Amino acid sequence: MEKSIQTDGRLVLGVCYYPEHWDESLWDSDMQRMAQHGISVIRIGEFAWNLMEPRPGEFDFSFFLRVLDCARRHGLGVIFGTPTATPPAWLTQRYPEVLNAAPDGTLYRHGMRRHYNYNSAVYRRFCLRLIERMAQALCAHPAIVGWQIDNELNCEIDVFYSSADHDAFRRWLREKYATLDALNAAWGTVFWNQTYTDWSQVCLTRPTVSGSNNPHALLDEKRFISDSARSFCKMQADALRRYIPQSQFITTNGLFNHLDNHGMTQESLDFISYDSYPMFGYQRGAQADGLYDRRWAANLARVRSISPHFMVMEQQSGPGGWTSKMVLPAPKPGQMRLWAYQSVAAGADAVSFFRWRTAAFGTEIYWHGLLNYDSLDNRRIAELDTLRDEFSAIGERVAGSSFVASCAILRDYDNDFDTEEDQWVQPLTRHSETAWLLALERSHVPYDFFNLTDDTRPEELAGYELLICPHAPIMTQKRADALEAYVRRGGKVIFGARTGYKDLQGHCPMAPMPGALAWAGCTIHDFTQLGPFDPAGRVLINGREVEAPLFHDLLTPAQDARVLATFASDWYAGAPAAVLRELDLGWACYYGAALSEDAAYELLNTFALHCPADDALIIPAEVGFALREKDGHRLAFLLNYSAGEVSVGLCRPVKDLLNNPVQDDRLFLPAYGVALVELT
Amino acid sequence: MEKSIQTDGRLVLGVCYYPEHWDESLWDSDMQRMAQHGISVIRIGEFAWNLMEPRPGEFDFSFFLRVLDCARRHGLGVIFGTPTATPPAWLTQRYPEVLNAAPDGTLYRHGMRRHYNYNSAVYRRFCLRLIERMAQALCAHPAIVGWQIDNELNCEIDVFYSSADHDAFRRWLREKYATLDALNAAWGTVFWNQTYTDWSQVCLTRPTVSGSNNPHALLDEKRFISDSARSFCKMQADALRRYIPQSQFITTNGLFNHLDNHGMTQESLDFISYDSYPMFGYQRGAQADGLYDRRWAANLARVRSISPHFMVMEQQSGPGGWTSKMVLPAPKPGQMRLWAYQSVAAGADAVSFFRWRTAAFGTEIYWHGLLNYDSLDNRRIAELDTLRDEFSAIGERVAGSSFVASCAILRDYDNDFDTEEDQWVQPLTRHSETAWLLALERSHVPYDFFNLTDDTRPEELAGYELLICPHAPIMTQKRADALEAYVRRGGKVIFGARTGYKDLQGHCPMAPMPGALAWAGCTIHDFTQLGPFDPAGRVLINGREVEAPLFHDLLTPAQDARVLATFASDWYAGAPAAVLRELDLGWACYYGAALSEDAAYELLNTFALHCPADDALIIPAEVGFALREKDGHRLAFLLNYSAGEVSVGLCRPVKDLLNNPVQDDRLFLPAYGVALVELT
Amino acid sequence: MEKSIQTDGRLVLGVCYYPEHWDESLWDSDMQRMAQHGISVIRIGEFAWNLMEPRPGEFDFSFFLRVLDCARRHGLGVIFGTPTATPPAWLTQRYPEVLNAAPDGTLYRHGMRRHYNYNSAVYRRFCLRLIERMAQALCAHPAIVGWQIDNELNCEIDVFYSSADHDAFRRWLREKYATLDALNAAWGTVFWNQTYTDWSQVCLTRPTVSGSNNPHALLDEKRFISDSARSFCKMQADALRRYIPQSQFITTNGLFNHLDNHGMTQESLDFISYDSYPMFGYQRGAQADGLYDRRWAANLARVRSISPHFMVMEQQSGPGGWTSKMVLPAPKPGQMRLWAYQSVAAGADAVSFFRWRTAAFGTEIYWHGLLNYDSLDNRRIAELDTLRDEFSAIGERVAGSSFVASCAILRDYDNDFDTEEDQWVQPLTRHSETAWLLALERSHVPYDFFNLTDDTRPEELAGYELLICPHAPIMTQKRADALEAYVRRGGKVIFGARTGYKDLQGHCPMAPMPGALAWAGCTIHDFTQLGPFDPAGRVLINGREVEAPLFHDLLTPAQDARVLATFASDWYAGAPAAVLRELDLGWACYYGAALSEDAAYELLNTFALHCPADDALIIPAEVGFALREKDGHRLAFLLNYSAGEVSVGLCRPVKDLLNNPVQDDRLFLPAYGVALVELT
Repeated sequence: MEKSIQTDGRLVLGVCYYPEHWDESLWDSDMQRMAQHGISVIRIGEFAWNLMEPRPGEFDFSFFLRVLDCARRHGLGVIFGTPTATPPAWLTQRYPEVLNAAPDGTLYRHGMRRHYNYNSAVYRRFCLRLIERMAQALCAHPAIVGWQIDNELNCEIDVFYSSADHDAFRRWLREKYATLDALNAAWGTVFWNQTYTDWSQVCLTRPTVSGSNNPHALLDEKRFISDSARSFCKMQADALRRYIPQSQFITTNGLFNHLDNHGMTQESLDFISYDSYPMFGYQRGAQADGLYDRRWAANLARVRSISPHFMVMEQQSGPGGWTSKMVLPAPKPGQMRLWAYQSVAAGADAVSFFRWRTAAFGTEIYWHGLLNYDSLDNRRIAELDTLRDEFSAIGERVAGSSFVASCAILRDYDNDFDTEEDQWVQPLTRHSETAWLLALERSHVPYDFFNLTDDTRPEELAGYELLICPHAPIMTQKRADALEAYVRRGGKVIFGARTGYKDLQGHCPMAPMPGALAWAGCTIHDFTQLGPFDPAGRVLINGREVEAPLFHDLLTPAQDARVLATFASDWYAGAPAAVLRELDLGWACYYGAALSEDAAYELLNTFALHCPADDALIIPAEVGFALREKDGHRLAFLLNYSAGEVSVGLCRPVKDLLNNPVQDDRLFLPAYGVALVELT
Repeated sequence: MEKSIQTDGRLVLGVCYYPEHWDESLWDSDMQRMAQHGISVIRIGEFAWNLMEPRPGEFDFSFFLRVLDCARRHGLGVIFGTPTATPPAWLTQRYPEVLNAAPDGTLYRHGMRRHYNYNSAVYRRFCLRLIERMAQALCAHPAIVGWQIDNELNCEIDVFYSSADHDAFRRWLREKYATLDALNAAWGTVFWNQTYTDWSQVCLTRPTVSGSNNPHALLDEKRFISDSARSFCKMQADALRRYIPQSQFITTNGLFNHLDNHGMTQESLDFISYDSYPMFGYQRGAQADGLYDRRWAANLARVRSISPHFMVMEQQSGPGGWTSKMVLPAPKPGQMRLWAYQSVAAGADAVSFFRWRTAAFGTEIYWHGLLNYDSLDNRRIAELDTLRDEFSAIGERVAGSSFVASCAILRDYDNDFDTEEDQWVQPLTRHSETAWLLALERSHVPYDFFNLTDDTRPEELAGYELLICPHAPIMTQKRADALEAYVRRGGKVIFGARTGYKDLQGHCPMAPMPGALAWAGCTIHDFTQLGPFDPAGRVLINGREVEAPLFHDLLTPAQDARVLATFASDWYAGAPAAVLRELDLGWACYYGAALSEDAAYELLNTFALHCPADDALIIPAEVGFALREKDGHRLAFLLNYSAGEVSVGLCRPVKDLLNNPVQDDRLFLPAYGVALVELT
Repeated sequence: MEKSIQTDGRLVLGVCYYPEHWDESLWDSDMQRMAQHGISVIRIGEFAWNLMEPRPGEFDFSFFLRVLDCARRHGLGVIFGTPTATPPAWLTQRYPEVLNAAPDGTLYRHGMRRHYNYNSAVYRRFCLRLIERMAQALCAHPAIVGWQIDNELNCEIDVFYSSADHDAFRRWLREKYATLDALNAAWGTVFWNQTYTDWSQVCLTRPTVSGSNNPHALLDEKRFISDSARSFCKMQADALRRYIPQSQFITTNGLFNHLDNHGMTQESLDFISYDSYPMFGYQRGAQADGLYDRRWAANLARVRSISPHFMVMEQQSGPGGWTSKMVLPAPKPGQMRLWAYQSVAAGADAVSFFRWRTAAFGTEIYWHGLLNYDSLDNRRIAELDTLRDEFSAIGERVAGSSFVASCAILRDYDNDFDTEEDQWVQPLTRHSETAWLLALERSHVPYDFFNLTDDTRPEELAGYELLICPHAPIMTQKRADALEAYVRRGGKVIFGARTGYKDLQGHCPMAPMPGALAWAGCTIHDFTQLGPFDPAGRVLINGREVEAPLFHDLLTPAQDARVLATFASDWYAGAPAAVLRELDLGWACYYGAALSEDAAYELLNTFALHCPADDALIIPAEVGFALREKDGHRLAFLLNYSAGEVSVGLCRPVKDLLNNPVQDDRLFLPAYGVALVELT
């Protein structure tokens, strides 16, 4: 079942609001102004436990009923958050076992947020009781349109070592492995005499010498954390669904690590939401990789892989930061609007800004909202007005239209979880994904992320011209089979180095690499990390020498494979670096290195991937491109991420729904400008 | 009451001595040599608890009575330290609750120093008993001239999380806020559901997720730590005063963080002392900011803001360092004397070197004294002899004279404490203070630091031509009023960016910025941190483009204000960056960025601040300048911080009391040389 | 007694094997292949506790008896490891006191290796029982040739803070000092009032303010750790010797810190073994100091200072790394063989590769063995075949021959342990040792390391033309006397800066520096660390200006000493930097700075040290040189560490036992090639 938001052919504007932060006398004027500036939905309540249960077992919803009445008066729909991300002091004081803990058992105390653990029976009991009371008290109110579960599950911290977690992990393992022998085999405990002879010996990560742990245990630990978060979410969703009408949706706002967001959405939510803060790409400490705020197009593509149409629950409006960390500059004039369109271009049909007015106290006084402390109209409100008018004009054409991708980058949680701890693979994955994103973004080749699982069917992949598998050490036979079937029916796939040598437990089976991908055109007879004193890695591809950093697989091509690239560095210069093999109607390619941007361009060229609008538009590299389609109408989003005016060449007359100036076959976009072109 | 040292018209030389580190047979020759080289006072005893109370309740002062007798024989006065910085092992073992603790409760154990906490009732009882016994046993001895309380309060560590501290914090908060409602309001606990419903829930910092804490709680935590240290100091001072004659002074040696040194001195001390180690400015890891050892002139100015005439209890003599950290090079020939004059120029009438002979064991074997391990005369002793002769010659003219400052840099503990945790403001403050100091030092404009409080009266400020407020987020109405009154009577004040948007609790009131400084000539309608990928910040001022780093406030000038500077970078180039407003007889200026050295010069030019001796002297930038005045006689200190000879231009004949060579209207200073010029 | 391996005139090839990691069906073919490729000995068992004692007190050796039978069938000798490096989960769970702990008491848990402590009585009891049972059950098997105790003592972690360690430390101190007064004096506890009044107050390092501790306590702590490891090793060796036949040797594999490997070998082992992984010199984070893998020649020289003929128990074969850290590139073609020769050149008569086949699971899946996961023959197996053939041809001439060194670098455990914590000395030692090694390696002057103790006799030193003492703060009278006697009989010695100012407890006696080395030609009247803003340190020596980094001793030459070098930087330019003094038949030199490579060359020139084969060979700098001699026959090892072909000039015809091509008086070595030249 497609897990998408339904907006009835509208592009929805929303805002996050914290009535508890302001004098009640301000609510009315605040909501009136919201409505006037185009806001139709607000999100509230997600940290306000004490306002509903000020003392254990004493429930009082009058505060929020007054808020809902006020919203109703101003025609605002309300998304109500369950406040489980911030347990009250009275709870954590009396039941410290509800707190999360560091690996050495040190409890994380009151004073921040997300300091609880998912597995405490006490905490689950308190949460469940409150949620049921909330649902009973509030769900009949006509202002309510949906519910948000908790807030940013696995944000701030994504590891859990409380006593309850250790116990639950042991139960989870018994469920999974049934016998200790099976666990010992799966974790390879015969290595370094780690064999368990009693279940009680098994724990989550604890302090160890060198801070190093069994890698297979770590992989299961992450799966367990994911299952814990999912189960906590499901408990809440199930409780809500016992009371709320079907017209009200349930969502939560992500995406965070150690969490199978696909599985969670499938089993518990109506759709996933996302919190989008592209200015993180420009903060102190951000990578100078050329993607900056444009990387958020990729982040949103990952959201879209879960929910083709989704909501941005928190869309950056102003400068961001905590008092204690994070220092984001102010968005430049136009960027707030640009990023809202970035979300819409990627599949968001609802965009809710964070937040109405900047907090006057607390850790987030620098996480600015639409309004500053002084509450006066400002340039952000002016951009909101522009969005209000534009969304009103284009909403019907855009909302519900589908993103059209030419290719997909394969991701899976097994490799995500395993690679995080694998210092041999992690740098490759990080480097190559950036290289692919740069090449795809600057070539204007629309891409999806695709969540590859053992259940993936070839027909799900058939729509893509190309699949990109950056580096996937874990490649099961089922996944390899699905990819082979996709290829034989005409698909193309590119595998990066270090793919296919691990099984689902992270073991390295006694088989030639790349294991289940034997059909991909080569075996790997040698390989090496590139050390800091090695010559810079180079590959010769399509007659051009490109960077080939970090790691090299030395390939023995299959007899019917063609050498696509050769190494141009170190003692194996001249040896095959990439092979291409035709399989029935399609092609497989194995590229034996980490990717540079230039290498990615050459591989896209090899497979003739290009911008699907290049019959109509000549788009400069600094402009982002996306395509949404509905009823045969194609709408091209053009997003100028640069600080200067740029122009897009027009091969034929087109219509820009956002009315940017056209002159001499050129469409002009101002700094941070956006165009929305009907391609027909 | 002015809290200053009285030296009866002498410049006093002293030294720190540890009789317990040496065979008793050495005392006599050591003290004889001290006296011969001009030393008239020694500081002893401050770590020697076990020598006075070797076992709980067994007191024996015979050791130190012998030391005092020896000092008396050689005409040396003695400053006796209370040994409370280093509790004995027998005490910390039996009462671990006297120890300080990390946020997670881990106790800091025996083996270092300053491992106790201020709030343990047990520790206070032991300290009080020992101090009373000490006072009784020693204060009548004619060698004693004064007392030092503890040693370097809040040095090494300035946070405290023992159980006793948590309890005392709770008491302190109840005293301050009376009700939990008031506390919840002050700390903004409604944010992230941090509301306290019982006093027992309230704690000092404990481990939290992300290591982040409520910023308002952190501000109160620092105030509490300051009050704890002050109360511990007052307990000791009160105990001493019950026994000692009025001729004996009480002091302590600072300055360290999280401590209102002004308040402590007012309530407990006769004057403040300082430990001055300018070579820290040249050690590995020191900032290459051009101030180096010259920054100590600013540190000494902060001391002077507490005690116009003070003592340097520890003046660097040799190379410094611990075995475990800190690696200070040896002072170059002349630097020891230079730094002694740096102290005197700033207001010190007594300078006591650290230490007589370098320790032969323990953590400080590399914290060298006047003598090396070999005890032989050396170049430091030769510099001491020079000082002995010079101080003897100039003492009467210098001692008791007053430092004459043209301007003052405003500081206050509220912003000190709040800014430390505020990652949005801290870098500005650090950067701008360095810029101001560089400009003031190199322009030879003598400056004070002034501790601004709600009790500050405009007349206290009237003596300054200019006040500089680098960045003060917290600006109360009372302080703003005092500054306005100062301006209207003819004063000038410069405010840097981010001033005036917080209240005393660190909240950001719903008002236009800069809040209580509405009279300063502008409101701030927009602002931004400068990100690492933003164009370098520039400001055009007085026709000159200067660096304007880190943060920009975008100003709307008041109608009667004049635009003094405009931005010259990013999308708001051309917009006002600084405004100037005339108020009655004075001027206010708001400068909307962090300061660069060049910007500071331009602002000094704008207000025509210059060296008060420029009718007589033309001083090169690398020479430090200070002015002390007594009975209408002005003495100019000229300090050559550079490694080369420099010359000072003479506009008219002047007398250098230190006899540097004069030729062709130029006074020549050797590397690290000092001159003392009578300006009349 | 010389503690050397006996190989009966053979060069032995071995491999590490883990039968427990593989299906038993593979053992036979694995061992058959080993034998075929020249392996004659395997090391097994060192982590396999559970396979011998699966439950407390239940012993079963059938698994390993089957392994031994299999080895016997294929003619393989077996070195059996005691599995005490990895206690079973059933043991650590029931007796957590056997675990090692962090300074704050946090236990290091199951999941890694080496998580036990040496002093737990419980652990010692379990180890002893198992070892006795192992010896009884296995030692009569004809395949067994020797035993390895534990695995890499003090690897991973070399500090121990369990409760058992604190207790043992107290006992150790009472044994050493007898009285608390003596302890207090030795630790200088009068400094900062650290005096102990009861033994129970004394502990190993615990958390302290600033993480700083009494330096003399830290020095004793390291000696205690060394004694703990030695005692643990001796317990095992004694237990084994109660059962095993004399033909079976006992060894362990080192070298690690905080351990007197010389003492341990003398009292417990037949010889020391070493684990040699030269690729660490090329990994990310390795120093770009020019030594890289060549530094392992120095490491092996340290092994040789313990056992003139030794075994390399783990010789790097493939790429190395853990999943959690360490990323070593693959050895280039030839490097595996090169490094095996590096070991042999240094004195190894047995070389055992790590490991047969790369682990398929666990933390070490990237610590590659001879075979990859796929078990196929590869280039490493080909290099092994070459070694098999070559060792067979040259073994008789090489095995048992002696390394011939021209000079020795002095080391001692007192300075090793003390310098580690001394931030004033540590950088000098690290810097100068690298400088010396570079100069010695590139000049082809063969060097030993010599372990200087109070028992060293001058005649032990007599064989060396030159002794190098880089920086030895601790220099006892006995050691100084031995060195003086060595010099007076015709020896030469060079001391670096900061030598001779500490005693055995790390105190700095009240005496002129360099203390007991008064005879070395100078006293030191001044000194300084070089700060980051000081001019770069320079010294003029032999008419050449060289770098002189980090620290300068300013020397007063003795009357009969000659100034060898002068400083060429800072205010003391022109002052003596090095002196040379003739004593009877020999020379002493004191060089008052840290060493640069150029300075080391000049000092070697001064003493006319050169390659002992320069009458026959002209060797380029990038080729390593070593000399082994037996029965008057001298064999020169030439090791090409570079990636390119190089040639060695031949002054006269020589025979290369490894058959590299000779043309026009030049011997050609390929990249990473090795020659073995008979010099006769």
